[in-house]
Amino acid sequence: MDFFDVVSVQEAKEKLTERFIEYEFGTEEVSILECTNRVLARDIYSSINVPEFNRSTVDGYAIQSKDSHGASESIPSLFNILGEVKMGEIPNHIIESGEALYVPTGGMIPEGADGMVMIEYTEKLDESNLMVYKSISLNENIILKGDDIKDGDIALKKGRRITPEMVGVLAALGISKVEVYKRPKFYIISTGDEIVDLDEDLELGKVRDINSYALHSLITKLGGEVVGKTIVKDEYELLRGETKKAMDVSDIVLISGGSSVGARDYTGKVIDSFNGKGVFVHGISIKPGKPTIIGEGNGKLIFGLPGHPVSSIIVFKSIVEDYVREKMGVVDFIPKTKAIMDFNFPSSSGRETYQMVKLKEVDGKTYATPSFGKSGMITLLSNSHGYIVIKAHEEGVYKGENRDVFLL
Amino acid sequence: MDFFDVVSVQEAKEKLTERFIEYEFGTEEVSILECTNRVLARDIYSSINVPEFNRSTVDGYAIQSKDSHGASESIPSLFNILGEVKMGEIPNHIIESGEALYVPTGGMIPEGADGMVMIEYTEKLDESNLMVYKSISLNENIILKGDDIKDGDIALKKGRRITPEMVGVLAALGISKVEVYKRPKFYIISTGDEIVDLDEDLELGKVRDINSYALHSLITKLGGEVVGKTIVKDEYELLRGETKKAMDVSDIVLISGGSSVGARDYTGKVIDSFNGKGVFVHGISIKPGKPTIIGEGNGKLIFGLPGHPVSSIIVFKSIVEDYVREKMGVVDFIPKTKAIMDFNFPSSSGRETYQMVKLKEVDGKTYATPSFGKSGMITLLSNSHGYIVIKAHEEGVYKGENRDVFLL
Repeated sequence: MDFFDVVSVQEAKEKLTERFIEYEFGTEEVSILECTNRVLARDIYSSINVPEFNRSTVDGYAIQSKDSHGASESIPSLFNILGEVKMGEIPNHIIESGEALYVPTGGMIPEGADGMVMIEYTEKLDESNLMVYKSISLNENIILKGDDIKDGDIALKKGRRITPEMVGVLAALGISKVEVYKRPKFYIISTGDEIVDLDEDLELGKVRDINSYALHSLITKLGGEVVGKTIVKDEYELLRGETKKAMDVSDIVLISGGSSVGARDYTGKVIDSFNGKGVFVHGISIKPGKPTIIGEGNGKLIFGLPGHPVSSIIVFKSIVEDYVREKMGVVDFIPKTKAIMDFNFPSSSGRETYQMVKLKEVDGKTYATPSFGKSGMITLLSNSHGYIVIKAHEEGVYKGENRDVFLL
Repeated sequence: MDFFDVVSVQEAKEKLTERFIEYEFGTEEVSILECTNRVLARDIYSSINVPEFNRSTVDGYAIQSKDSHGASESIPSLFNILGEVKMGEIPNHIIESGEALYVPTGGMIPEGADGMVMIEYTEKLDESNLMVYKSISLNENIILKGDDIKDGDIALKKGRRITPEMVGVLAALGISKVEVYKRPKFYIISTGDEIVDLDEDLELGKVRDINSYALHSLITKLGGEVVGKTIVKDEYELLRGETKKAMDVSDIVLISGGSSVGARDYTGKVIDSFNGKGVFVHGISIKPGKPTIIGEGNGKLIFGLPGHPVSSIIVFKSIVEDYVREKMGVVDFIPKTKAIMDFNFPSSSGRETYQMVKLKEVDGKTYATPSFGKSGMITLLSNSHGYIVIKAHEEGVYKGENRDVFLL
């Protein structure tokens, strides 16, 4: 397979979107105890007010705020104590001018009251007389009914990756189950006569299957599911048979090459042998990762990833992850940080370049240093904190620039 | 319980470390297919060289590099082609001056050769004659044996949270199982007469149990395990019984208050009623989260967290997570980003303040805007991207400052 038609990363993404415009991962309902990191498939509307009543944010006394105006350390205001409301109870008093009712943090504000004075600014003379040493403003220390979330509002938008804080919102709304996107199903095929699995002997000249384990972990981290994982020799019929099996049970098939020319040929021919559009991306101008092919067969998405573990990981992160996020409309903040480049670095003009970097903090500033190493070294990745993306039109990186570092 | 002895966040952490100096979470062996996000409990030594042989990083010809010196587009060097080595095979030629052997990417470099010339810079005249149009340097396009990882080296340090890239290294080393820290076991008790679970009716004055669901999700995200989760009324004997049960099966018991004074009293008394040091932190100068207590009973760590969901989440993130990370010696990069503050914000002097912020990107720069809202509003958190920490000695935040934003 020749790489005459190498496309940019952006073009590859667009072709991918276009070819799979109708493909859906589907949704499922899960308990909010199991929804962390899943992606919301529907907007969450509130059918209640949160809070459902005017609630105190402090321990203290509910009063009419105007009664406290002018009160100070030297000239306190005097109030008549009506008693107290307990947590979870409805107050059985209506507050009138000059009256005070004790309300704990989280307790319900009685009718008539429009402010809470903190207990620290009061003094109880006896069971029924209270001195207040501070003036409070209207609704001070009160969360009004619906202040947090209003009945009918969209509380959480679809596409958000569910955080603990969002689980808190779901619980506040009384929602115990939530509709999320199904985990995309992946099948990983490692090809290559030289590839040996972990439980096999490593004869000289052979190499361990690194890619399928690294990809397995990337898929786990992304929230996907690996439904199959296998190694096949560089033989057309074997690869076709395995790919057919993979397409039947997964959403996305990853064939990690054999980065030799012959192996790439097999992958392309196999993809083209099924019903469908066949290979529609024949190489991407990305560094590392150029010999990547993308195709469709029997309605399923098939990636031919480079054999180099580093290239394969970079293509997964830049293209595969991006596709999954786009399909689910994920709107979360991708883990990245701004850092000051402490190096000059030229890039391959015309190719989107992924450069691994280490981060360090000096005097409260974050600096990025490039991780150097030869192409294909796995420690290039494992010893780095993240990577910078140098766009195809850029000439490189200049020392002192403040750029995004995407965290691994 | 009075908060006479409020300590700083740093002091609270130190007391915690000191009291639990001998406590261990224990370790276990897991498959590398299930180790993503777990924390390495042992240094990983390599017992092999990676690669185990001199390996080509390109498709091309292995030659003696000096033979190419002076070669150019106009004056090519001539080589005698010996044949090719296939992937996974040991070459059966020794390269001498003027000879070339085809080696695919990832293939083994034959003895005698010390450079690979890419196929793009060669032309085959016939089966045995090759023209080379480019001069290459010593070891160009070769990864030498052990270049990536050397036999006997520490390949991965303990305390690292396992990433896909690290899984790649483990696979390269032929390691299929790895020793990681056990997931810390948590038991969550929500106390309060007003607290109602998701499957119960919400009468006026009551509130949903938000904390235990948000904490459950925080624990999941941290890599811990929730072994129990319950709601108890504000009654001493009930709370003591539940705490006893919790201590028997967990590493850490979280009692999420009842932020009322009475509820706090119960929690403290319960903790003090067991064998051990009892409560040793009676309030922390943190905002929000002051009414936090920390104690020990029957050798187990017990937190009395504030009833406000926001406070409770902040204390979990700042104190509980930090403790777990310290116990495991976790050395990963905490997800955070530098951002330019687009606001002036005074802080409570003497308290470490956690201010929620939203992030936005303008012209390639990242700005942070505060999320305002009343204390205890859960949407304060769910509508924010992260938070900044204003230290106790700082007066606040100045517009234009470049600070760390910790991502939620």
